[in-house]
Amino acid sequence: MTRITLRFDFDDKRRLGPGKVALLEAIRQHGSIAAAGRDFSMSYRRAWLLVDELNKMFAGPLVETHGGGRNGGGAVLTELGGSVVALYREAERKMSRSASREIEKIEQVLALAGTPQS
Amino acid sequence: MTRITLRFDFDDKRRLGPGKVALLEAIRQHGSIAAAGRDFSMSYRRAWLLVDELNKMFAGPLVETHGGGRNGGGAVLTELGGSVVALYREAERKMSRSASREIEKIEQVLALAGTPQS
Repeated sequence: MTRITLRFDFDDKRRLGPGKVALLEAIRQHGSIAAAGRDFSMSYRRAWLLVDELNKMFAGPLVETHGGGRNGGGAVLTELGGSVVALYREAERKMSRSASREIEKIEQVLALAGTPQS
Repeated sequence: MTRITLRFDFDDKRRLGPGKVALLEAIRQHGSIAAAGRDFSMSYRRAWLLVDELNKMFAGPLVETHGGGRNGGGAVLTELGGSVVALYREAERKMSRSASREIEKIEQVLALAGTPQS
């Protein structure tokens, strides 16, 4: 099963790709930047810097933190954060569908990998 | 103008993304792995390893080298190599079109970057 990964380069500096989107989804799930980062074996500092970058990239913050200072408090996706995640995932779904013929054709010319093709 | 980058993960080990495809296109243009690598400030060794990986990934080689040993000779895309590049680029075009609405919506919520939005 071929997995499609999608990255947007908005301009020289601003990028949105699978890593940032997965981090946002993990923040929504765990309610915490630290816990979300751990899902990807990411240091708290690294996760926090990515969130900071995302918050500055868009017209408003995608993640809001509350309570207990940087490490102690929780974090939630804002409405804008939820929208950006949904738009990215919807783009990904549409793209996989739209190019399914090309993907299939590329799969057909892959070398056999271990198991024989039927 | 948002640029879309696409990567295929066929399985754990086999990936096809913008770097490899651009290298194949440069080999087609220059007729040489070394010259193609230079376009991306890539060592000859690095370029050659990527070509070797691509050649093993598919049912046949994507690049054929001829004459003068590893460094001296020329290189051409095979018919299969040309097909893989064309399928990748066509998938990319279809994908950009199919998700143009989502891309536009994400662009609309980007922070203003230097120039004011109209």
